[in-house]
Amino acid sequence: MSTDLRTLIAEANRAIERAGLVTLSFGNASGVDREAGILLIKPSGIPCASIEPQDLVAVALDDGRVVEGSHRPSTDTPTHRLLYREFPEIGGIVHSHSSFASSWAQAGREIPALGTTHADYFRGPVLVSRPLELAEIEGEYEWETGRVIAETVRTHGRTPEDSPAVLVASHGPFAWGPSPAAAVEVAVALEAIAALASQALMLNPTRKPIAPQLLSRHFDRKHGRAAYYGQEGFVAEGRPR
Amino acid sequence: MSTDLRTLIAEANRAIERAGLVTLSFGNASGVDREAGILLIKPSGIPCASIEPQDLVAVALDDGRVVEGSHRPSTDTPTHRLLYREFPEIGGIVHSHSSFASSWAQAGREIPALGTTHADYFRGPVLVSRPLELAEIEGEYEWETGRVIAETVRTHGRTPEDSPAVLVASHGPFAWGPSPAAAVEVAVALEAIAALASQALMLNPTRKPIAPQLLSRHFDRKHGRAAYYGQEGFVAEGRPR
Amino acid sequence: MSTDLRTLIAEANRAIERAGLVTLSFGNASGVDREAGILLIKPSGIPCASIEPQDLVAVALDDGRVVEGSHRPSTDTPTHRLLYREFPEIGGIVHSHSSFASSWAQAGREIPALGTTHADYFRGPVLVSRPLELAEIEGEYEWETGRVIAETVRTHGRTPEDSPAVLVASHGPFAWGPSPAAAVEVAVALEAIAALASQALMLNPTRKPIAPQLLSRHFDRKHGRAAYYGQEGFVAEGRPR
Amino acid sequence: MSTDLRTLIAEANRAIERAGLVTLSFGNASGVDREAGILLIKPSGIPCASIEPQDLVAVALDDGRVVEGSHRPSTDTPTHRLLYREFPEIGGIVHSHSSFASSWAQAGREIPALGTTHADYFRGPVLVSRPLELAEIEGEYEWETGRVIAETVRTHGRTPEDSPAVLVASHGPFAWGPSPAAAVEVAVALEAIAALASQALMLNPTRKPIAPQLLSRHFDRKHGRAAYYGQEGFVAEGRPR
Repeated sequence: MSTDLRTLIAEANRAIERAGLVTLSFGNASGVDREAGILLIKPSGIPCASIEPQDLVAVALDDGRVVEGSHRPSTDTPTHRLLYREFPEIGGIVHSHSSFASSWAQAGREIPALGTTHADYFRGPVLVSRPLELAEIEGEYEWETGRVIAETVRTHGRTPEDSPAVLVASHGPFAWGPSPAAAVEVAVALEAIAALASQALMLNPTRKPIAPQLLSRHFDRKHGRAAYYGQEGFVAEGRPR
Repeated sequence: MSTDLRTLIAEANRAIERAGLVTLSFGNASGVDREAGILLIKPSGIPCASIEPQDLVAVALDDGRVVEGSHRPSTDTPTHRLLYREFPEIGGIVHSHSSFASSWAQAGREIPALGTTHADYFRGPVLVSRPLELAEIEGEYEWETGRVIAETVRTHGRTPEDSPAVLVASHGPFAWGPSPAAAVEVAVALEAIAALASQALMLNPTRKPIAPQLLSRHFDRKHGRAAYYGQEGFVAEGRPR
Repeated sequence: MSTDLRTLIAEANRAIERAGLVTLSFGNASGVDREAGILLIKPSGIPCASIEPQDLVAVALDDGRVVEGSHRPSTDTPTHRLLYREFPEIGGIVHSHSSFASSWAQAGREIPALGTTHADYFRGPVLVSRPLELAEIEGEYEWETGRVIAETVRTHGRTPEDSPAVLVASHGPFAWGPSPAAAVEVAVALEAIAALASQALMLNPTRKPIAPQLLSRHFDRKHGRAAYYGQEGFVAEGRPR
Repeated sequence: MSTDLRTLIAEANRAIERAGLVTLSFGNASGVDREAGILLIKPSGIPCASIEPQDLVAVALDDGRVVEGSHRPSTDTPTHRLLYREFPEIGGIVHSHSSFASSWAQAGREIPALGTTHADYFRGPVLVSRPLELAEIEGEYEWETGRVIAETVRTHGRTPEDSPAVLVASHGPFAWGPSPAAAVEVAVALEAIAALASQALMLNPTRKPIAPQLLSRHFDRKHGRAAYYGQEGFVAEGRPR
């Protein structure tokens, strides 16, 4: 397990606390080392703000056993593990009970795409899962939570890239991305998107989602081959005066 | 009175201020020394942020007299005293006028269990008291407030453990736990729960409470013998790679 | 003009900024020296956060002329001056556009007494003024604003003590007290009260005000001869163990 | 390009972050050097909090080419460029996705003038643009966004001075002023105005805008020849005691 990845995952845990997404210990970030076949995650019940690289718990992707670390891993570890297995393209996951996103989850409503902040991250609504069945709740609950998230993405014809978070009904958001830092960014954006949508619908309860073309314009200017947001690959075409 | 307990109670008073639960001097934390038969509480009208161990006032559990301290104890002291007498299993109490929890109290509505954040702390709705009778208001008002809280827990068939806070109607929340720090945790969680429920009901006014099985799953994973959240008693089953 | 009063008024200006009541330069605090016949107030358009004693502008109570200070006084100075003249018992005034209190002012609604936080400061609703007449707006607008505030208190049979703030319709709150610090306390409490009432009415739109006895119980435990909140005149009746 | 202007624009970018208007990298500030024919703007995708003068990108007003700077300019640069060309009286522009202002934009509603905080900055409602046409979205999207903003001001008979911001429907606010700092001030005031209006309409959904005379009184006391707010040109008429 590389020192760098540990550092990045510890930083992701602290970042969600700094961003105001975490109350008490309701939140965790993880990352995955695909080659080693393990994920690294926050210990259970320990505040995100104080997580250092050596606090993280290493868990095997294949069978979930703790392979390194003296703490018990987050109770949500099976959810993370399932998602890493189902979504091979992702490298980091963030779970929180952040206020606005969780209130949509508790309301059991998907978040409609009402604006361009939303479109920068999601190509369509932010999906909400179905309620878990009783057998799922009383069985391997956290594992089943992961299964329901993956099912939600797939049954709506979405992908982990264009739907980088799902609201688990009556629970809260799980967000992901190619790296732990990218998952943090989605979690932060999602909380802002959820707040905007709540406030917008109070002002205009029948407001319809934005046009698909506007949705695509914003999503595509940040994602994919034609992206022109950010600094990647930029060569200044002008010249100093 | 042990120095340690004083330190923990002073810290609990500062913690509720840091957590944003307290405006002006609307809040107080206390703890109890069962052997000595006294409770220690914040002085009246002094900001929580500056409370040091020596500022606390010691009050006898049996008759309410001040047994140590040069300040007048919080006006809410009789409420705390009654609760320590009625609920022998508790060790700390926090009272605040925190914004979302108090707005539910002012609305006179119990908070329905709409999500798992709620279920982590309350096995059922967060109860709201009946209004105090005129005789109670004009009599030993703060003592009667405590009696109404205890009555609320009991008449709903709940216990101090599965209902670790009550909203006093038209007033605000009282929260408790086995220690002052545990009472702080409940008070912080309650404010988050109250905010989530307000926002969720604005998005879906007819949303029903979660299934009892989901409620129990979350409550039980944090409480009681089968708890598997946090670090208590954990022995890593894996091994270093 | 005593150095002490200057220091207290400068501190009051900084305190309303720290308390989050002020956006940009929408807020000001003043104090009065009754013997000298002058009020001291924040300069116009200068941020509250940086006010030092020497920045304050001294204005004559009788005719409003600037008697000391190199800055232009707040545009709201005539409002403050009228209130000091009409309410001889007050010693400090705070004006802000704080978010929740100003939204009630903009809504043109008085804030009903829905809870004990409210009752600790106001013996009845927080009053809202009538709209200013066109002649008042186009005449000595800021002076007329003060006259409407005083009229609001009087026509409702209230006093500056039991109604220590008024919402100027379509504008925002003016708060006062026996000292600049007391006015700050009222302004802070009012913002909390306004937020609680907004949230409570969203949860229960037909909620009625609390019983007059509960209102009086809380108001009287903080105010007047029978007050028993805070530390004034307290003599511990217990003894050290 | 003067060092001073670079410093002021970098500071404006940091100021909107400090003021809480910016989530992630959703925000940017620019300024213009009319003589040199260039605008200076934040680089794309870089956090506002860390912008230093040398990070800014210089773009030609006439054809949009990058004339200085090693970063790619903000994707919103064409919007800024159009606005500088259409509004020759402005010197700075701020764009953000600030929470309350953007929620009005997402709701597609103009913000009615419900109070004096609003009237201090806008002589009438805060305008919301029409939705962009599909050809505009799929063409030079950011340039067309600027055209729609300018069109919105003009078709309502407003000017860049009395309408110093427009809400782009389904997107968010663009604000401007004679300098970058003035644009920041409008952006901050707009967010406060948007919050006040949302809360006021929840309390009183049929509340009507304020009287035109009150609107003018407040606007004119801060703007134009008869302004008497702030310190400009002030000569104390009193004398030291």
